[in-house]
Amino acid sequence: MMETMQTRYKKLMEKAKNLLVLQSAEYIIHWDMETMMPPKAIKLRSQQLSLLSRIEHRMSTDPEIGTLLQEITRRPQYDKLDEIEKRNVYLIKKNYDEQTRLPEDLVAEIAKQRAITVDVWKKAKAAKDFSMFRPELEKLVELEKKAAEILMEVKETATPYDALIDIYEPKMTAKTITKVFDELREGLVSIIKKCETAPKKPDTSILKHKIPIDIQRQIAKALAEAVEYDVTSKEAGGRIDETEHPFTNGYYDDVRITTHYHEDNFTSSIFSVLHEAGHAIYEQNLSPEWMYQPIGTGCSSGFHESQSRFVENIIGRSREFWVYFIPKLKKIAGNVLADVELDPFVHAINQVKPSKIRVEADEVTYGLHIIIRFNIERDLFADKIIVKELPEVWNQKYKEYLGIKIENDSEGVMQDTHWASCLYGYFPSYALGNIYSGQILAAMEKDLPGWRKQLAKGNFKNIKKWLVKNVHTHGNLYDPADLIKKITGKELNVKPYLNYLNDKYSKLYGF
Amino acid sequence: MMETMQTRYKKLMEKAKNLLVLQSAEYIIHWDMETMMPPKAIKLRSQQLSLLSRIEHRMSTDPEIGTLLQEITRRPQYDKLDEIEKRNVYLIKKNYDEQTRLPEDLVAEIAKQRAITVDVWKKAKAAKDFSMFRPELEKLVELEKKAAEILMEVKETATPYDALIDIYEPKMTAKTITKVFDELREGLVSIIKKCETAPKKPDTSILKHKIPIDIQRQIAKALAEAVEYDVTSKEAGGRIDETEHPFTNGYYDDVRITTHYHEDNFTSSIFSVLHEAGHAIYEQNLSPEWMYQPIGTGCSSGFHESQSRFVENIIGRSREFWVYFIPKLKKIAGNVLADVELDPFVHAINQVKPSKIRVEADEVTYGLHIIIRFNIERDLFADKIIVKELPEVWNQKYKEYLGIKIENDSEGVMQDTHWASCLYGYFPSYALGNIYSGQILAAMEKDLPGWRKQLAKGNFKNIKKWLVKNVHTHGNLYDPADLIKKITGKELNVKPYLNYLNDKYSKLYGF
Repeated sequence: MMETMQTRYKKLMEKAKNLLVLQSAEYIIHWDMETMMPPKAIKLRSQQLSLLSRIEHRMSTDPEIGTLLQEITRRPQYDKLDEIEKRNVYLIKKNYDEQTRLPEDLVAEIAKQRAITVDVWKKAKAAKDFSMFRPELEKLVELEKKAAEILMEVKETATPYDALIDIYEPKMTAKTITKVFDELREGLVSIIKKCETAPKKPDTSILKHKIPIDIQRQIAKALAEAVEYDVTSKEAGGRIDETEHPFTNGYYDDVRITTHYHEDNFTSSIFSVLHEAGHAIYEQNLSPEWMYQPIGTGCSSGFHESQSRFVENIIGRSREFWVYFIPKLKKIAGNVLADVELDPFVHAINQVKPSKIRVEADEVTYGLHIIIRFNIERDLFADKIIVKELPEVWNQKYKEYLGIKIENDSEGVMQDTHWASCLYGYFPSYALGNIYSGQILAAMEKDLPGWRKQLAKGNFKNIKKWLVKNVHTHGNLYDPADLIKKITGKELNVKPYLNYLNDKYSKLYGF
Repeated sequence: MMETMQTRYKKLMEKAKNLLVLQSAEYIIHWDMETMMPPKAIKLRSQQLSLLSRIEHRMSTDPEIGTLLQEITRRPQYDKLDEIEKRNVYLIKKNYDEQTRLPEDLVAEIAKQRAITVDVWKKAKAAKDFSMFRPELEKLVELEKKAAEILMEVKETATPYDALIDIYEPKMTAKTITKVFDELREGLVSIIKKCETAPKKPDTSILKHKIPIDIQRQIAKALAEAVEYDVTSKEAGGRIDETEHPFTNGYYDDVRITTHYHEDNFTSSIFSVLHEAGHAIYEQNLSPEWMYQPIGTGCSSGFHESQSRFVENIIGRSREFWVYFIPKLKKIAGNVLADVELDPFVHAINQVKPSKIRVEADEVTYGLHIIIRFNIERDLFADKIIVKELPEVWNQKYKEYLGIKIENDSEGVMQDTHWASCLYGYFPSYALGNIYSGQILAAMEKDLPGWRKQLAKGNFKNIKKWLVKNVHTHGNLYDPADLIKKITGKELNVKPYLNYLNDKYSKLYGF
């Protein structure tokens, strides 16, 4: 009897493997589109991507998977599977149920409407005209609400919006997020106020030095090396390339990051490289024996952000990192950065200043941008606000949360691509990532009390080893709530992150 | 009734389109492997390629295609299809019949044995030891003979080897090739002898100047521009990248070439860029309205070679091209090529000298390398020689055809990857390409008698226009024998190519 069970499990895993391998091939096609593709090829590329996603959908909904799942999940045999096998079966079943329950017509309609909405969003943003964007966004939201209602049934979530959150942060709910974000908001606002009234102010003029792109490329490589993301050796599993918007993509032995070099803003590429390298080392250090298994992926979008933000902010914006890296920076950049001094530089890269644009926000105000978006999405999917009201609600919240007056919708509600791209439920991941990173830091500090001293000497090895052992290696074996408990012994909790910020910014600003 | 026919035809074409789109995606994955992939990813990449080829095979052998073909090819309705529709149906049927008739087990066995044989070939070549290579090659040849016998039945060819030739050069036969190659050999040997005893000799020392790789990259771009292969504009449909072995790959709006830069051999990249650009402009200039249809591909491997060799040799090794390009070359390279003079340079790049290695051979001796390989393959698949005898036969033929003594099998029978890679039937394409290019040149000279004068002024536009109109645009609408007749009004004929060579080399060598 067990033999049949093992044969079935093996069959099921073979199908899961094919799906993962296909997805990893699609990553290459996407990456090539953003980095290497000759411009003329864009129409052909959309045909390729659409075909591959249809093949992927067909593989995900293969009726044989359904039959195998039915047989495998039948008790008592099911109980003989071990923890890892059960998790693999669970993840395959979750994907199968979602993919098969969403009507193909609806999926196709959403894909089509999303393409239209993204296209109109670009034009409306350029024209600073929300009224152009509105009718298409309304259609998209209506379609996504239908999908969310179906997913709510499949996933048995309390609300449609929870079913969307679950795509990125499994089992997380708007109710929990609301609670922690309220606490986070209070803490962030308090720090911002202290910084505003603090005696010490950063001088950011040093960040305006013009650095040639070629030099910035060398700096990027040195940074990758510093955080052990290998892009140069004969055994390298990574690359750094250039795109308009930085991103990470790949699977295990082929994880690539991109950045954008701005001649008059050299720290932009520095922090995007560190951020993406944080994502990359997570993907590269999943348990090797789980390659081609569903558990061999990142835990959630929030956990992915926890790793990118850990490397970007907790490591990359720490004083200790720059104790080590400023001499390297000067060696590469030469005269043009000769006047960089440690403490003024560290304060400059940690300036706290409320602003309009999320992607340009500092570590402290960033969370407020996210909380605003989460609150709006939640209310939108609960029918408490309608698309038409988005600009008004947006501008009012920016005034209230950040004390900022939004002049037009291009720098307001239309600044991000997420809503046009139908990524509802994604925004909370960014701030959840920050919260996780604070808890992870607190746990790491217990095991590695000397990490700051080591970092100042350029020793990132032990920090990485700790992250690999405690975070990366667990892959997708646990849902995020269970993983954070496994790592830290505690539930999701804002305090460690706020403690970290308070400690750091009180030193920087002298409050 | 016709409506049903049109619906079926449309359905069939949709399936053919999917196959072409998938193949174009596979090109990207291959290209990335050779150019961009981090080294660690090689195992993952082989999983991706193997999965994609399995998906491709499944799509090719979709039983629905079989049903649609049966219905569509039923008379009298079939006769209502136009010429283009009939050709598409023919090409789909040909592929379907071949793919479905070859047993999957045999295909898998060949794929596996090929991987082993390539691996052993590399080691045996490094060790200069044919006896290492032999047992694996024997297994591969036996398997390929089985496949060839099945294909012979499907394709109704006279011999198994003809069925292999047909893969690359549809409807071509070993009998026809033997006839034209015998004539070609006689002509080439005569030219070689005349060059050997001629009064003028080339001085090739100019070709040894060291040119920095960065300069060579700029030369490559200028060459691409000169033959209208766009790699730089905002509407570019091409790229030039770097690989160990140059190649072209892509589809319509995304056709990429690669080259290899040798600091101490700058003409190597010059001619590989021109060669690959010849392939690329063929692919880019297939009828745009045939994109995603089976007729929207190159006619045959031989025709592809005719286009690459036309651009590399007939254009790129002509005096007129260098009248135009030497000033450009000097402008890019500066002092280091200041001493290049037109006629000595043109003679140097057209040196005729029998040698051991095919890929380093000149335009005239090259054909003899191919004829040797063809004769051996033909006899191998006719059981007139066995694998064990290959080195002896090889060395004897090199002595007889080229007057060359082969010292070891690495520079002899093991120099090429083709036999280890199971590309039997491919070699003749190279020399057929030369023969076609001679006939095409003769036809072009009638329409464009002033082409050499135009070329000397840097005007390649009319030449390209002629090639597009008379060769490229026909795609795969005709079999090669029909296409050469369509273009030139004549059957396959060696004379124009020999005339071209005689005329060119008598001027260069003064015989």
